[in-house]
Amino acid sequence: MKNVLLTISYDGTNFSGWQRQPQKRTVQGEIERVLSTLCKQSIQISGTSRTDAGVHALGQRASFQGDFGIPIDRIPIASNHLLAGEGGLLKSIGDIQILEAKQMPDDFHARFDSLGKKYIYRIRNAKRPDLFQRNYTYQIEKALDLGAMQEAAAALVGTHDFRCFMASGGQKMESTVRTIYQLNVKKQVSSQSTQEELIEIEIMGNGFLYNMVRIITGTLVEVGLGKKRVQEAKHILESRNRCLAGHTAPPQGLYLVEVYYEKQPWM
Amino acid sequence: MKNVLLTISYDGTNFSGWQRQPQKRTVQGEIERVLSTLCKQSIQISGTSRTDAGVHALGQRASFQGDFGIPIDRIPIASNHLLAGEGGLLKSIGDIQILEAKQMPDDFHARFDSLGKKYIYRIRNAKRPDLFQRNYTYQIEKALDLGAMQEAAAALVGTHDFRCFMASGGQKMESTVRTIYQLNVKKQVSSQSTQEELIEIEIMGNGFLYNMVRIITGTLVEVGLGKKRVQEAKHILESRNRCLAGHTAPPQGLYLVEVYYEKQPWM
Repeated sequence: MKNVLLTISYDGTNFSGWQRQPQKRTVQGEIERVLSTLCKQSIQISGTSRTDAGVHALGQRASFQGDFGIPIDRIPIASNHLLAGEGGLLKSIGDIQILEAKQMPDDFHARFDSLGKKYIYRIRNAKRPDLFQRNYTYQIEKALDLGAMQEAAAALVGTHDFRCFMASGGQKMESTVRTIYQLNVKKQVSSQSTQEELIEIEIMGNGFLYNMVRIITGTLVEVGLGKKRVQEAKHILESRNRCLAGHTAPPQGLYLVEVYYEKQPWM
Repeated sequence: MKNVLLTISYDGTNFSGWQRQPQKRTVQGEIERVLSTLCKQSIQISGTSRTDAGVHALGQRASFQGDFGIPIDRIPIASNHLLAGEGGLLKSIGDIQILEAKQMPDDFHARFDSLGKKYIYRIRNAKRPDLFQRNYTYQIEKALDLGAMQEAAAALVGTHDFRCFMASGGQKMESTVRTIYQLNVKKQVSSQSTQEELIEIEIMGNGFLYNMVRIITGTLVEVGLGKKRVQEAKHILESRNRCLAGHTAPPQGLYLVEVYYEKQPWM
């Protein structure tokens, strides 16, 4: 029996999210279909994060067990070939890529052994929306006050009860206390134009409640637009009241970047 | 009767090209459907360029005539609302945007009055393909020799019979002589990584044969890869033989950027 850890990137645009669902195209469903073909047995994978429809991943992780003949280091190239579809130049790259596959000890589990994750949320701040960015950023036309967003973000770093930043509809969980190690709001001037800015919210934590990154983003955006005051961030957190936090930012700006299995300097 | 000129941008990924076709989602078909609703009459538009499936536009032009009540300057916002679909944040921007609508003299025609066009072709040159760029660039993993491509490009500028760069399947035409005013091959180092380069081929001409830009690009790519010598470009042109030119570069790297109705300095 082999225990395999996959590193996976995907463009979430054309998926009904990560989690396998009957009759729907999901990331887990597509990968399981392809791995089952390759391994000649029914394969079920456990992903670290059940990303929603439209959410992207640069470094999702998933593990699975099986007793199969294909060498583990051949899994990425063979899977990517099947994931890309019928071929031809336009189809030579699919919307899922397996970046790496490696063998792990028998008791390793991609989700339970994760110590933390990093997400980024991309905001395009420009007067005119760019249709080519519609699936990859949250487009905001009014100018955002970066300094205010940074100040509000700083109030959220640390170990807190993040209940106010949790959407209903997630799994039941024993505790809503989580630790945010870092929460950085950075501006990147686009190389293509000085008329637009890319703002990236980078967040590392030991775990995230349902929609937590998107609600934190929505709250920071409202601070950036002047709809909420910087000082409110701390009060919202302490209130534990979802109604006081901002809106849920749309899924297409969110990227799961990395999953940590070893302690990082800031943990 | 009003005569209206539209400036249009679209992401060609999910269209069967520009031209109206029964049972297929095309750019012309979608715009005509929306304008017919807005203008309360059957509207037919004439586009400047019949872009293929997967090809994008930043500044396509199309004209139409009609006798309708809606003010012309309201057409973009009203159309874009309908083109974006059912609403919700994820759907607030559609894959077509009408950038401008303006009234023209009665005898103006978007295609027949065009004096020239500018296309760009985007190549991503990096060791590892990026799945987020699969619909927006031609991804080439081996390093391209930019200097060789620039030298070969220079040989194609001017007035020539470009028959060797024409695919079969286009419309019959009287002459295959065209003028390329400028053909620039430029490198842009990506802001995100030094491991990847964006190469842009910018081409301005008075007209283009079927697949001409894509075949010129394929030929320049083969020069850049060392599969063809720089000196061959001139010989290919003079041969008028499609078999000697390079492959047809895939549609997803091609963007129609601008249509000219007034003489430019280089014309």
